[in-house]
Amino acid sequence: MFESAELGHKTAKTDYEEAVPALRAQLLDAQFDLLELKDFAVVVLINGIDGAGKGETVNLLNEWMDPRHIQTWAFDAPSTEESERPFMWRFWRALPPKGKIGVLFGNWYTEPIHARAKKISKRAELDQQLDRINRFEAMLVREGVLLIKFWFHLSKEGQKQRLKTLEKDPKTRWRVTERDWKYYALYDRYRETAEHVLRNTSTGMAPWLVVDGSDPRYRALLVGRTLLDALRKRIEAAQKGWAPRQTAAPLPPSLDNLNLLNSLTLNQEMGKKEYAEQLELYQGRLALLCRSEKFRQRALVLVFEGGDAAGKGGAIRRITAALDARQFRIIPIAAPTEEERAQPYLWRFWRHLPRQGKVAIFDRSWYGRVLVERVEGFCSEADWMRAYAEINDFEDQLIGAGALVVKFWLAISPEEQLARFKEREAEPHKRFKITAEDWRNREKADAYAQAVCDMVDRTSTESAPWTLVEADNKLYARIKVLRTLCERLEAALV
Amino acid sequence: MFESAELGHKTAKTDYEEAVPALRAQLLDAQFDLLELKDFAVVVLINGIDGAGKGETVNLLNEWMDPRHIQTWAFDAPSTEESERPFMWRFWRALPPKGKIGVLFGNWYTEPIHARAKKISKRAELDQQLDRINRFEAMLVREGVLLIKFWFHLSKEGQKQRLKTLEKDPKTRWRVTERDWKYYALYDRYRETAEHVLRNTSTGMAPWLVVDGSDPRYRALLVGRTLLDALRKRIEAAQKGWAPRQTAAPLPPSLDNLNLLNSLTLNQEMGKKEYAEQLELYQGRLALLCRSEKFRQRALVLVFEGGDAAGKGGAIRRITAALDARQFRIIPIAAPTEEERAQPYLWRFWRHLPRQGKVAIFDRSWYGRVLVERVEGFCSEADWMRAYAEINDFEDQLIGAGALVVKFWLAISPEEQLARFKEREAEPHKRFKITAEDWRNREKADAYAQAVCDMVDRTSTESAPWTLVEADNKLYARIKVLRTLCERLEAALV
Repeated sequence: MFESAELGHKTAKTDYEEAVPALRAQLLDAQFDLLELKDFAVVVLINGIDGAGKGETVNLLNEWMDPRHIQTWAFDAPSTEESERPFMWRFWRALPPKGKIGVLFGNWYTEPIHARAKKISKRAELDQQLDRINRFEAMLVREGVLLIKFWFHLSKEGQKQRLKTLEKDPKTRWRVTERDWKYYALYDRYRETAEHVLRNTSTGMAPWLVVDGSDPRYRALLVGRTLLDALRKRIEAAQKGWAPRQTAAPLPPSLDNLNLLNSLTLNQEMGKKEYAEQLELYQGRLALLCRSEKFRQRALVLVFEGGDAAGKGGAIRRITAALDARQFRIIPIAAPTEEERAQPYLWRFWRHLPRQGKVAIFDRSWYGRVLVERVEGFCSEADWMRAYAEINDFEDQLIGAGALVVKFWLAISPEEQLARFKEREAEPHKRFKITAEDWRNREKADAYAQAVCDMVDRTSTESAPWTLVEADNKLYARIKVLRTLCERLEAALV
Repeated sequence: MFESAELGHKTAKTDYEEAVPALRAQLLDAQFDLLELKDFAVVVLINGIDGAGKGETVNLLNEWMDPRHIQTWAFDAPSTEESERPFMWRFWRALPPKGKIGVLFGNWYTEPIHARAKKISKRAELDQQLDRINRFEAMLVREGVLLIKFWFHLSKEGQKQRLKTLEKDPKTRWRVTERDWKYYALYDRYRETAEHVLRNTSTGMAPWLVVDGSDPRYRALLVGRTLLDALRKRIEAAQKGWAPRQTAAPLPPSLDNLNLLNSLTLNQEMGKKEYAEQLELYQGRLALLCRSEKFRQRALVLVFEGGDAAGKGGAIRRITAALDARQFRIIPIAAPTEEERAQPYLWRFWRHLPRQGKVAIFDRSWYGRVLVERVEGFCSEADWMRAYAEINDFEDQLIGAGALVVKFWLAISPEEQLARFKEREAEPHKRFKITAEDWRNREKADAYAQAVCDMVDRTSTESAPWTLVEADNKLYARIKVLRTLCERLEAALV
């Protein structure tokens, strides 16, 4: 969930000062339309790591917009009035009416996350609470509420730095308490819990929007911009008379053009000699691992995604060379067959799941739904928005049944891709590999990059993480794939 | 969940033989349209109590329809093929393609219910499984599957009789095994588990349809008719190009005109003298209960629903007469105010929830959504279908916070209602009570009766059951209300 929010996004002071006046004017306009229209209420949830700028951002929203029509609520320990009624009563009291914006700073997520991070509650109890929250939020959305959920994130190092900076300045020292450092000591538990919570409550109707909290200007613009986009989209839908469920909240854009893909150094060093040595080393290790006694009770599911000509096929061949042919199957995923189109989209992957002791290698996969189908408009926004949760559910089931799920995104630069396309066109035996579609896809590079980043943010999990592979140098890419696979297997077969 | 299915519905042989040919022809027609259209797949789940006719009904469906386009699956212990893959794999394999009907006889509910009834799994584990099932089914529906879930029910006595009957006949004796009697011994656990499961997985998109399994002809017609209605509705929607989620599956009708309301004896005996004695008795008990030490940590939420002039106000006054005026509030629910219309529909009830030691008396309530709003078309079918689950969630929260929820439906006959209307019109001081609307409502009696029965079936729970009050005799009704309330309080304050 937090990959994109740890890239260290930044907005320069001059850019910020240039952007704010227009953003404020647009937010005020949207707020006015919302009030005039009185068609829906807006609930903004503010959660996240301490020190990531939640409070500052809420203050800023009140400053930027008309505070008479924003209701900001902070929830501390329940009052006696509150504790004598159901847990949700205080939040129902805080719901804004149609036409208004309610900012809930601390809300129905706060207590369940605390309790789990501090080990007061068990995982199953947390899951029951999350189930109830999902039902509650689904009801809100179906009742017409626009629900926007911000999670303010800081890396562990980021949180430490932030607390230290505050402590150093006499003007802000008062803000850092012993309690803050206590929470910091629990950072890893909080992060793990938050990932679980965010993943299980990110629905197509109300996804979590993770905000990199490290730079005050960046996070302010991101929140303002995301809020504005969501308001505008929904106001337009209301004016057209569409049902609320037809408009999912948008995912947050990258404002500084920094993303998971372009922050990679795609051309990594690796010479032929080093490659040959490492290839032998890792293929040997892989061969042993997949023939081990312990592997017979497990299964391996490999996912290869990447741009055209990124080298998926080559990497796959370096893996299969180490395996027994009776043990693996490569499943190339292209357009679905007629039989497959007559089924739910995940059906064609379920049918290829491996038995114990076997390896299924997917050359492209179920991620097509949030990549090509999203970008090309083959399915509706609501469809690909719900797919993140469905895919996580699917992979959870694989892992629960003992499979190891290893996912690779092979990333190449546009220049390298172009060079490979030309090379393929020139070589008769590789020519079949390049089609008109490949050329077309290049033109949608930005949309694909956004889709890849959203995919990694929303489906890279503790138990099934994505590995981004710098693939401009094929040799390096193949070795990184093999090494990652060996390491994941070794960790799993202990 | 099982109230309507325990009324002993029956279909006479002649009626059955008359109805079947037309039903078969219509089912075949619908099946043909389904196949032609290839727009959606149909998944029929068959679950329920042993001996309630699941197998017979499945056989009948295959006989009545074209079996080439029905795929029937029964699931026993998993094969090795199956046990080496995720739990859901076998069910994915069984999904029918668009245009076909899959009958899943035993399915993803079977194992979770068994495990819980036999105390192999804990409640929290079951809830996690149900959460996963809900997510899976939501995905199926959003992918366009028409999902119809039948629960075959028998009362405890009914199951016993059925097993004995089978045992008596030499031709069917083989069908009763020791295992069947073992399950019978666990009837109460199964029923309790089933109620929990059905309540938590009855969604607006895929509600459970409970079938009274006691009479073979009745259950066959009910299943056939419900399947036909669902197919027809969805085929029409597909032909109009509507999204699948716009059409909820219908609830099963009563085929023999027997329902929860008309099986009551509305005019119960009670004379004035007996009334006076009992009134004093129960008001005295109630006064003590509500002033007891233990009540100070609880709260009481009373719900009064019933037709116009059913005597809700009179019953409420007999309760409040026993209470301290500082302790209770009567909340009359009429059309929502402007402020209330700007909020989710449950908001206006949340705002009136009582603190500990207090009593909130709702004269009409949140059930308006599934009664008047349903019948008068004030909300969409999808809205009132989802309301059953939302209302259950709401009441669960009340109960979880220590409140006692007691719900009364006051039932009067059309004749008695008419007499009371006329009486009111004649008496100047009661005249304000009768409006043109009251007269209009009488005309929709059938639709209201259906709505009341569905409401009781779907929201009468172990912890918040409905009490149906025979109210043609006001004196009897008031005493039944008071007595029920005292008994519920006494049980809760132990």
